[in-house]
Parts: sequence; C-alpha cells; structure tokens
Amino acid sequence: MKVEVITIGDEILIGQIVNTNAAWLGVECSKLGLEIIQTTTIKDRKNDIIFAVEKAINHADIVFVTGGLGPTNDDITKITLTNFFGTELVRNTEIEANLEAWFTARGRILSDMNRAQADLPKAAEIIPNTMGTASGMWFEKNGIPVISMPGVPYEMKSMVKNEIFPRIQQRFQLPFIFHRTLMVAGIVESSIAQKLKNIEAEMPHFLKLAYLPKPGIVRLRLSAVGENEVLIKKTILEFENKISEELKNYHYGFDEITLEETIGKILKAKNLTVGTAESCTGGKITHKITSISGSSDYFKGGIVAYDNSWKETLLGVDSQLIQKYGAVSEEVANKMSLGLKQKMGVDYAIATTGIAGPTGGSDQKPVGTVWISIAGPNNVMVQKYSMGTDREFIIERSSMQALYLMWQMLQKI
Amino acid sequence: MKVEVITIGDEILIGQIVNTNAAWLGVECSKLGLEIIQTTTIKDRKNDIIFAVEKAINHADIVFVTGGLGPTNDDITKITLTNFFGTELVRNTEIEANLEAWFTARGRILSDMNRAQADLPKAAEIIPNTMGTASGMWFEKNGIPVISMPGVPYEMKSMVKNEIFPRIQQRFQLPFIFHRTLMVAGIVESSIAQKLKNIEAEMPHFLKLAYLPKPGIVRLRLSAVGENEVLIKKTILEFENKISEELKNYHYGFDEITLEETIGKILKAKNLTVGTAESCTGGKITHKITSISGSSDYFKGGIVAYDNSWKETLLGVDSQLIQKYGAVSEEVANKMSLGLKQKMGVDYAIATTGIAGPTGGSDQKPVGTVWISIAGPNNVMVQKYSMGTDREFIIERSSMQALYLMWQMLQKI
Repeated sequence: MKVEVITIGDEILIGQIVNTNAAWLGVECSKLGLEIIQTTTIKDRKNDIIFAVEKAINHADIVFVTGGLGPTNDDITKITLTNFFGTELVRNTEIEANLEAWFTARGRILSDMNRAQADLPKAAEIIPNTMGTASGMWFEKNGIPVISMPGVPYEMKSMVKNEIFPRIQQRFQLPFIFHRTLMVAGIVESSIAQKLKNIEAEMPHFLKLAYLPKPGIVRLRLSAVGENEVLIKKTILEFENKISEELKNYHYGFDEITLEETIGKILKAKNLTVGTAESCTGGKITHKITSISGSSDYFKGGIVAYDNSWKETLLGVDSQLIQKYGAVSEEVANKMSLGLKQKMGVDYAIATTGIAGPTGGSDQKPVGTVWISIAGPNNVMVQKYSMGTDREFIIERSSMQALYLMWQMLQKI
Repeated sequence: MKVEVITIGDEILIGQIVNTNAAWLGVECSKLGLEIIQTTTIKDRKNDIIFAVEKAINHADIVFVTGGLGPTNDDITKITLTNFFGTELVRNTEIEANLEAWFTARGRILSDMNRAQADLPKAAEIIPNTMGTASGMWFEKNGIPVISMPGVPYEMKSMVKNEIFPRIQQRFQLPFIFHRTLMVAGIVESSIAQKLKNIEAEMPHFLKLAYLPKPGIVRLRLSAVGENEVLIKKTILEFENKISEELKNYHYGFDEITLEETIGKILKAKNLTVGTAESCTGGKITHKITSISGSSDYFKGGIVAYDNSWKETLLGVDSQLIQKYGAVSEEVANKMSLGLKQKMGVDYAIATTGIAGPTGGSDQKPVGTVWISIAGPNNVMVQKYSMGTDREFIIERSSMQALYLMWQMLQKI
C-alpha cells in the first residue's frame, strides 16, 4: 500500500518547526507495512491544498493530511477539504458535547470560535481526538482514503496509533509484518556488519535486517513480512538469538531501550548504587542517568571535577599524581573512580577525564583523548579512547561509552 | 521569488533521518527574501524525480533539489537530471583533479566509482563542493534555475551559503532585506507581546517582528524589506533599541547566542568563577555550561547532590535543616549555593532543588516545584517555580531559568 503525506503549515516551510511528524509517520507506516512514497509540505492556501490532494489521490492508495485544523482563520484545511469532496459542514452534537466537557475540565469557556470545531463534514467519518479539540476526518474518493488529522505531534501520534491504523488494518488486507529491534552499543556499524556476515547470508528472503545508527549505539531492526504469522515469529526469534549470541558483549536490550535505562533496571533489581566523577564529559553522563524516572533509587550523586583542585579536594586525587601523569591519564581516571567510591560509599563509580577541545591538546595527548574508569565492588576497569576533534561529539560519545562500560561491568556480577 | 525544495532519499521517507535540511533552508531563504512555497520528499526513482521537477518548474521561480548525489548505484539524481535537461555527462578535469587531491589528502585511492563523480552535465553550471566529493549542478529551463546539491547537511549548507545564494543574488534583483534577532529569557511569549504592544503598533509597514520560542527562551526577529538600505538599517536599530529598553531585564543578547555563552563571556571578561550544586536538574546546568569551548577558564566544577547525604557531606547542608524544611525548600536551596561557594571558593554558585517527578510529589509540594538559588560575591537570590508535570520539561526549563537568574545577577556587578 502506497501512502502520500501532505503537511500543511507555513511554520514548517519557513523553518520555524522541523517536520518531525513526517519522520515519525515514516517509521510507523513502515512498521505496519505501508510504504510512504512522497511527503509534501505546503502553505495554508486553498489552491495549494486542492492541487496537492488531487495529485496524491492519483498516485497513492492512502493519503494522510496533517495540520491546518486549528480554530483560527488561518487554518483552512477543514473547509477546503469539505468543499473539495462536495459535502457540507454540519454541527456534530457528540463532538460538541466533548468540546464542552474539554473546556469545562480546564476551567475555560467554550467560545463560538472553538465551538465551530464541532462543525464537521457530513460525508466524512469523524475520528475522535482524545488529546485535543480538532477532530480527524476520513474522506474517501475512488476508494482512496484521504485522512485529515491535526498537526500537533502528540495529538497526531495518538490519533494515528489508536484510531487510524486500526481502521486501515480493518479496511485493507495488509500483510502480516513483525519487527524486533536489538539495541547494540560499544561497537561500530562496520564491525557489526563483519560479525553478522554469515548470519545475514543465512537469512530467508522474507527477513530483512536494517542498521539504524544513533550516536554511540546501533539499532538492528529485524523485519519480516508475509502471510504465515507462526513462521514469521519463529524465524525472527531464531535470528534474534543468533545475532544476540554473536554480539554478546554489545547487545544490551530490545526495542529502543536506552543504556541508562538498562543500567538503572539492573542496579535497581540488585539494590546497588552508582555515582559519577566527570571531567571532560562535564555532567552529560549524570544528566543521562538522572533523566530516567526513578533514578534516585540507585543514583546517589555526581561530581563534575573540572578544575584540578576539585579533583583533589572532592575525589582525593593527589596533586603529585596529576603532576606526574597529567590530569588526562589512566592513573588519574582510576583515582577519580576509586576516590568517589571510597569517599561517597557508592557500589559503582563512573569517571572520565579527557580533552574535549578545541584547545588543550598536545602531540602526546591530542584533543579527543579520553580515559574512562569504572570502579565496581571488586575491580576497576579503565579504557583509553580517541574520540575525534569535535567538542560536542567528544562529550556525547564519551558519555555513551562510559555507560556502555558500566553496563559491561554489570554483566559480570 | 518563490522557491520549491525537492528532497530525494528513501531514508527520509522511512523516517530514518529527520529532514532538518528543509527547516534550515526555510530559515535561510526567508532571511534572503526568498519564499519557500513547497517542499517535497520523494524516493530515489527516475519517474518520481522527473515528475516532481516538472511540476516545480511550473510553480516556482527557483527549484532546489537536494540529495541523491552519492557515488553508488542507488543515487540517480545526476543522471536523471542530465537526461531530463537533454544534455550529457562529460568528464570535468578540474573537478577530477580536486577529487584526486581530496582522496590523496585522506590517504585513500580514488576508485573508478568515485572518479565518476567528475562526470558532470555539459549544459549545467558546476558548483564546487569544498566539504565533499559531489558537485552541485545549476540547470536552467525557461529561465527557472533548477539547482541540484548534496543531501549531507554540512555540504549542502556550505554550498548554499558560499556558492548558491551569491549566484542567486547576482542573477535576480532581490529586495534589500535585513534581520536582527534579540535573544530574550525569563519571560513568556504572551507577556512579551503585552509589553511590546505599543512598540509594535508604531512599527512601519516594512518592518516585521516574529516571535520564535525555544524552551526557556524567545527569539525576537526584526526583519525589514525594501530598497532603501540606509532607512532600513536605521529603522531596525531604532526599534531594536526600543525593544531592548522595554525588555531590559530579559534581553540578554543578539543573533542566536545562548545564555550559557553570554554568562561565560561576562565571567571571563571580569575574571570571575562559577560552580554548580544541582539536585533536580541532575547535571543539565553543568552540561550546558561545559558545552561552551573555553568554559574551563571560569567553570570550576559542579556537584550533583541527588541523595540528601551528598547535600550534607559535600555542601554542608545540615540534616536537621532538611528535616525541618524538606530537601525542596528555600532554606536548603540557599544552603546549597552558599555551601558550595564557601567550600569550593567560587565567586558564584548556582543551586537547584525540586521534584522532577513523576513520583515524589505531595499536595504541598507537587511535582514541578523547583527552588533555584544563586549565591554571588555579595548576595543570594532565590526563586520558587512551578514547572509543570513532565520530567524532561521540568529539568530543561529549570536549567534555563537558573542560567537566566545567573545572568540577571551578573547584570548587577
């Protein structure tokens, strides 16, 4: 099934908003077995909307229209589509009652302008919007659904998942499609490809493996399409296990889970605690760990020891050690993690020291040199990295690598 | 001048990549006085490319095509456009020499596949790419330029700014357009609009003010279009000063500068230092400050005191104070900033304590309650906020607000 997406809104064309809706729809449609063949962004202008919809009906099997459904005058999608499909607006009393309830619940009065959001096209199926006040509208022409929905991302996403996709699945005979994403860290794409060469060669034609890299991690998405649900699920499971076994030291979880969440789950389950002693990563590791709800159960605190005197005072790193080996060294990294562990009594301590640049590098220790040390209950693990030359990249990659090493150490308990 | 942008690439349609190029082009085109009327994303397929280009030529004055210029077989933009414009590929010896040099500089051999990137359409003007190996191509039909450029963001951006925009300005008589962006923090859009009502009413018709909000800040963009450069610049300056005066306590800088950069410049110039004592913001403030190159000149370090025992041990917050007022209180926030300042000898200390949720709230102190305290050389400033209910939002907004308060305190020295 071919899908075309039409996005309506000046704010996207002038770059005030990045069109993340399109990317989200791309991912979700392909999971469902729908292929997006084109996305078009146009202005809130009658002729542009009609032209785009007419063109899309001629090319696609399903047309999604997002945006332009607000109550103000500049939003003309509803009236334009109503006229285009030769129908008329009628007051929908059920939606009107919902609007009344929505405004009352928020202590606001339903104005005439907002009440007009209950005026909806007679010939369209009305799609409820549980997150906002603009209803979705399912028009149809020559068997091609043209589905109009709000542009506000969380309203659109909820409507697509809960209302539109189930209707599409009911209306069309879609192939059975199944996905499983393996989350992998601590290894680059090309090395993964090398390791998985034989496994990929064994894969049946209905199974596909996509490499989806993000900074510091690679998502491996297995997808299978077909008629035989049992066979598909069995095959996915079989290859998921093969890949997981081959990438044993790198495969940390499934389906979009982050490293910080995975680590948190292990620590919480085992009633263990962690703290951080960051230098070059400047609080990024701590920020990642504390971005997880419930992290206060296992994360005790962190010290960003930027200045060497902070390393001395708070982590017990001897100034002579810094003089002898330099602040960016194996010795100092280890002393930072061990010092934190000892001083603050955490089970695990994550430490980083490096040169994030653009200044501060030397021939022996160029910008991008980073030492990461993890102190655990029984041992210390330390690694040196060359993280390139871009400050933002060095901070991000070093933080991800530190979390990966932390996960690795937790595998050994 | 109307512009249509055609983006070619399956990876954008399936949502693997968010189309940030389109947003960037939207911003840059409008700065130059070009209006993007449509952006279209299509697959790497010959007929789709031809159909989109034909349609664009009929609607726009200039057509930008991005993507599909790589050396591999799936990239067919170059050959498709060459055929569409009825010309042929010829080896460009200058570009070939550049490719040789490019590969040699990187210690790589120029393969036949890569050498073929020097085969370029005879009838197009070739646009140099200083950041990569795919040249840009300026075709023309019925006076409408169709400009093909790489999809890699930094290659595309550099080519647009340095090569394509200057050629467009030379080729077309664009109106004189001038922009100035005032960066504003610590105040919401609606309050700004209230304060600027009279100033906006005074603005001449050729001057426009756009409100561009980002989390924690609002960018106010003044734009003027016309023929008279002197008048335009004078008018912008006049209104820039009026707005700045009206928003005296909120207007912290110009043209996309961040709060953390502004603070850093002031601290560096005055030879002052800062440290952080974060609880609910979990390292986000520290991360923002250290993301600035050269921050080690004024940022000494930070303590993320998540656990109350860390607040006691490292910041000297008495456990009885926590028992009496609670960890989320004015008293504890002040003690955190003062404790850090005293213990670590920084000139300024930024402290936060709050409930980021989703758990931990109570009737008296619901999720989103945040205290921010700044201790300076002569005084302490403390503020309470209600930051909503979303964890990510609470962390981000509190961090921005803390930086804003820090900037405010620096205004008084």
